This record gives sequence, structure tokens and C-alpha cells, in this order.
Amino acid sequence: MFDILPLKGGLDNVEGFFSGGASVGLKSNNKKDVAFIRSDTLCDVGAIFTSNKFQAAPIRHFKRYGETFQTNFVLINSKNANAMTGKEGIDDIDEVFSHIPSSLHVKNPLMSSTGVIGYRLDTKKIAKSFELFDFYTKDSNAAAEAIMTTDRFKKEISVRVDVEGKGSFYIGAICKGAGMINPSLATMLCFIVTDANIPKGLINELLEDAAQDSFNAISVDGDTSTNDTVMLLSSAKSDVWDKEAFSEALKFITKHLALEIVRDGEGSTKTVAFEVKNAKTSDEAKKAAKALSNSLLVKTALFGEDPNWGRIASTIGASGVTCEEEILSIYYDEVLVYSPKKKQLDKESEGAANKVMKQDSFKIVCDLGVGDKSYTAYGCDLGHEYVNINADYRS
Amino acid sequence: MFDILPLKGGLDNVEGFFSGGASVGLKSNNKKDVAFIRSDTLCDVGAIFTSNKFQAAPIRHFKRYGETFQTNFVLINSKNANAMTGKEGIDDIDEVFSHIPSSLHVKNPLMSSTGVIGYRLDTKKIAKSFELFDFYTKDSNAAAEAIMTTDRFKKEISVRVDVEGKGSFYIGAICKGAGMINPSLATMLCFIVTDANIPKGLINELLEDAAQDSFNAISVDGDTSTNDTVMLLSSAKSDVWDKEAFSEALKFITKHLALEIVRDGEGSTKTVAFEVKNAKTSDEAKKAAKALSNSLLVKTALFGEDPNWGRIASTIGASGVTCEEEILSIYYDEVLVYSPKKKQLDKESEGAANKVMKQDSFKIVCDLGVGDKSYTAYGCDLGHEYVNINADYRS
Repeated sequence: MFDILPLKGGLDNVEGFFSGGASVGLKSNNKKDVAFIRSDTLCDVGAIFTSNKFQAAPIRHFKRYGETFQTNFVLINSKNANAMTGKEGIDDIDEVFSHIPSSLHVKNPLMSSTGVIGYRLDTKKIAKSFELFDFYTKDSNAAAEAIMTTDRFKKEISVRVDVEGKGSFYIGAICKGAGMINPSLATMLCFIVTDANIPKGLINELLEDAAQDSFNAISVDGDTSTNDTVMLLSSAKSDVWDKEAFSEALKFITKHLALEIVRDGEGSTKTVAFEVKNAKTSDEAKKAAKALSNSLLVKTALFGEDPNWGRIASTIGASGVTCEEEILSIYYDEVLVYSPKKKQLDKESEGAANKVMKQDSFKIVCDLGVGDKSYTAYGCDLGHEYVNINADYRS
Repeated sequence: MFDILPLKGGLDNVEGFFSGGASVGLKSNNKKDVAFIRSDTLCDVGAIFTSNKFQAAPIRHFKRYGETFQTNFVLINSKNANAMTGKEGIDDIDEVFSHIPSSLHVKNPLMSSTGVIGYRLDTKKIAKSFELFDFYTKDSNAAAEAIMTTDRFKKEISVRVDVEGKGSFYIGAICKGAGMINPSLATMLCFIVTDANIPKGLINELLEDAAQDSFNAISVDGDTSTNDTVMLLSSAKSDVWDKEAFSEALKFITKHLALEIVRDGEGSTKTVAFEVKNAKTSDEAKKAAKALSNSLLVKTALFGEDPNWGRIASTIGASGVTCEEEILSIYYDEVLVYSPKKKQLDKESEGAANKVMKQDSFKIVCDLGVGDKSYTAYGCDLGHEYVNINADYRS
């Protein structure tokens, strides 16, 4: 038995972790643009990276350490992705790290970057952050702010997990991403810290498992930005371990943050869960749900609050999954808009569906009726603000 | 030796074909919404249809005739797609056709529809068109107008092909589609007629071959609307046949119309050719080029006239094709913006690239440098008008 208790704040509740943010002039108007996360002991590290062939320099740097290693320091900058910068991109990271104060006893420092592709880092400006940071502060809020790009709000979460008869451990996280994410390759970064005593060799498996129905439900494997990173640091300061409790708490955290990214979709006004039920296989359920969350015509109909279920059906039909016109049913929340017996949308259902669509958040359910597998993908609408934000992102 | 001579008009230059359009009240404001194409002799038919699982009723109706058949009549309506209408959708077509005047001696009539999914046809209104049409007129312009939905302009083309020592034949076509097409599933319809004496059994092969680098370069196989149709009718009234000449003329026509669809992209301001060169395989060249033409971030950067080549690189990297950061080059027309030796965009190149992007039409070239295969996909930018058009399409 265990309980998961949500707490305020991101990384701050986890013992031994320090974090903060500073402004060094990468962004304009003195906005925070560099963050650090530091642990007072060495931590095991788990990480999931983008499957983009052009992995950004910080990811290539991470991989230089080999399969297993420990670290006590992560530096994150926004505004510049340090991607498509070749060998020089890694040299720049080394240059920045050469300025870390020796008093911190940093080992195997890590970096993450997000922003525009194709520009060298301003190493001098970034190294200046080491003079500005208070490395003994717990200011996860400032760190969450410093890693934002087009995000409209900060993304933090923290929980305490009480395991009956064993004690407690903590997990905290900060995250950035304001996403149409897939297929648009907007970068998402997520940093999770815990004091749970994760057994050796398990950390990556736990992280990948949690990402499956959270970050992977908003961003397709194989179609991600050059920088996407989810990282988990474990100090093992708590001697408590319970795999089921940790796994469930981690899933709660990653799901919450993934939905926060969708809710913060660039220019979006609605969050929608696309639930595909009774598909023939799990892969087909996922494929159809993803196709819905990525369809431009579906997204614009959501923005227009138009219960145009024909676009839902057409997208399902085009996705290549097993489906039949004479079996399929489509619902907006509980409102049935299409079934083999009800092919025409009557005024009453149209009104009810329209009402559903006026909510900030709702679900569209497609019951394929050809099997028993399900998957839910999360998406948002596409409106004018998306065009505004992305037409001239670099400036 | 042969010459391809462009002519004015669409279907009208081809002997024995008649066409026209009428308004029966499916669209508002007395806009034309029903068209016919009629031949005074029976024609062989070639057709390519959507691979969407939910094929619209007109396509299911076509397939009832079996593998090979001849026809002399095609009816087309806009505003209603007659898709997701089940058996009743086909019954409605039969009902409409029962009103064709017997004096026309119509055999195996065909239908195409485009518009909103999920509503039964108004068979009475559509049948009324038979009282309005002059079946002996050549008014391809009116037919092209009647099949439009969100199209901003009519799409017609016609050519005369002179084959040395043999004589001439004609090809004419009308088309509709205003497309982001893929992945947005906007319907495209194209009707091509010819008097060339195409040998039996060759018509589908010729059509598929021509579609490969034209309609398929703007709309991915496997991700198309419920109604997409390209149809070729051959009266064989000219006794001239030259496979090479016909094939080249047909490619010229389909390429022209495909580019017209892109140019008419909903709310688009630019047409862009995405050329992927020196890919490892033809499939990879196509995959990468398609990924570029479909990326939301690329499309919005085009709208903003921002030479943000990082989004081009990131999309290539995410597409899953063989590529290396240290080999890739990217050009906007002739302006080099990225190569292994030139990772940073200097002010001069940025200005030159920006100038390229101000054109109505230009190309983005990605030289992958890992093989010798190429493919060019065509796309357009995504701006505010796209959102306006699609947010409430049904009304």
C-alpha cells in the first residue's frame, strides 16, 4: 500500500537537490535564460533522448560518458539549441564547463539546450551564470522559468510517496515545451529528481515505461526535435524503495507534465483527448489516435468549435488501421455523433456536440469495434496564435 | 518526334466531349454546384482513387462496374461528399441516375462528389440539373467552376499533341483542390479526356505513371481524403497513337494541375518545391521531401519569410532517412545557408535567403550527399487564412 501526495513546487522538496535560474542576456529584456540543477551527492542518471538523426550537441556530449555514470550537475540554457553545430558545439560545452567553480566538486556535468538551431553558443555569456547563481539555493521556480521558450506558463510538479511500513520518498520535476510538439518538432525538456533508492540498472526502464503513455502520447517516437530530453536523477538519499509505488508516482508526474505541454500548445485554446477504443491491435489504436491529434483539419475544426465528425472519420480512414464504416462509432464526450444506425447528425446532437466543444477540455472517442485495444493521444486546437508564434520565431 | 502545344480551355478542344455546369441550390448564392462531362461515343476509363479506408459512395459505385467497362457520362457535385453514407449513399446515386434523360443513351454513368462528409445527397436538387444542363454544349469553364469548393480559382488545361508522320490528338482536363491536401485530406478531383487511340489495357498504367510525380507529389498515397479521384476518359476518336508522346503530354497536364492545386493552397501565399538530392534510395528521397512539405514549423516559417534553415534540418533528421550533419547542405534557390563548412548563417547569406523567400515561388534544396536519388515534393506556406477557411468549413 502506498499514497501519492501532490506538493507545491518542483524540485525543491527533494532533499539534497539545489536549483536556480539567472539572466545572462541570451534572451532580451533580462529574462532568465540559464538554469542549473545540482545535487550534493552523486546521482544515477536515466535519460530518454530524441530519435532525430541530428542530435544536438548536449545529447552527443551526454553520450560521451558511456553507458552508466554518475553526475551531480546539470546546466540548461534556452534561446539557443546548440544543434547542427558539429564538433564545435561540443567544444563549446567543454569551454562552458571549464568555468564551473571547483569548490562545487562537479563530476560529469551535463547540459541541455533549447531554442534556435544552427547558432554557436555564446560561451562567455553562459559561463557568466556561474557568477550569478547561488548554488546553495532551492529555487526550482526560477529554473523552470529560465528554460522556457514559447511556453506561456512554467511547468513544475512534486510529490511525496508514502509507502506503508517503509517510509517516504520524494519526486520533483520541471519541464518546458509548448507544443504542437509532433509533427512540429518543438523541443520538450524535462528534468526529474528523486531521493528514492532506485536499484542499479532499473532507472532507464522506469523512465521509458513512464514516458510511453505520457510524453510519447504527445510526441511520436521518430519524429521529434533535435533536442528533446527527459532526464531522471536519483540521489538514493532515502533508503525507501518500492517499485510499484515509484512507477505509479513517476507516471503521475510525467502524465501531468505532458498534459501541461499540450495545454500550453502554441496558440491553442483547448486540450483534447483522442481516445481510440476497440482497435484490432495496440499499434493500430496508437496510430489512429496519433493521426487524429496531428490532423490539421481536425485541429482547425476544434478551434472553430465545429462538430465536423466527417474529418474525424476521414482521418481514421486514412490512417491505415483496420476499420469499417458499418461498425465505427464517434462520440464527443458522451454525445454520439456517428454510428452505423445514425449516419446523419441531427440538430439535437449537433447542439449537444457543439456544447461539448465549448469546454476547455474534452474527449473525442472513436470506437472502431474491431478488437479490444485502446490508446489515448492528447492534442490541442490550431488557431491564429500558432501562426503568429511560428512565422518568425527567431526574432 | 512530337510537339506538345498548350491550348486555351479545358475539355472543350477534345472532339466529341461535351460539358457544363449548373446551379441547383446545394451551394448558396446561386453558385454552380453540379457539372457533367458527356461523350458522344463510349469511352475507355482509367481511374485512381483514394486509399482512404472509408471510400465515398461515388467510388464504391464506380467499383460495382467491375474491372473494365465503358462509359459516356460523368456527373459531379460539390458541397456534399456523399461519404460515410453507407448503402444509402449508393442508393442515392442510383436515384439521381434514374432521372438521366433517355435520349442521351447514357451507359454506365459515373459520379464524383466533393464537400462535407456525413450528409445524404439531396437527390431531388441534383436531378434537377438534368433539366438545366444543355447536354450539347462545350462549357468546360462552367464545369470547372461547379466542382470548386474552397478553390480560389478554376483549374483547366488542354494540349494538342502533334506526332510527326502520324497526326494529332488532344488531351483536356479540369481539376479541383485547394490543398494543404496531405495531411489535411482536402479532396482533389481531376477529370481528363482525350481522343487519343490508347491501346486496350494501357489506360490505368499511363494514368498511374503520370500521377507519380504530380498528384502523388502533393498528396501522399495512404493519407488521402474519402473522395480523391483522378479519371481519364478516352474516346479513341483520333486514330493517332504514340505512347511516348501521350505519356509526356499526360505528365505535363497532371504536373501543371498538381502545381495549380498547391498554388491555390488554402490561405497560402507561396508555392515551394522541396527538392531532396543525393539521397540513399528513391524512397528516402521521397520520404524526406514529403516530410518537409508537411511540416507545420517549415510552413509557418515560409509564411513569415524567415530563412530558419534549422527547421529544415530538424525535419530531415526526424524523417528517418539516412543523413549526416557533416555532409548535408541546404540551399534556398541558389543561396547556400548550411553546409559542414558553413554552419553559421552570415548576414549576407541571410539577406540573400530572405530575398529568395519573398518570391511567390522558389525551391528549397537539401543535398543529403549519401547517394544519388532525388525527389521533389511541392508545398505551400501556412498562414492565417488557412485557419479562417478551415475553422468552420461546413457553414
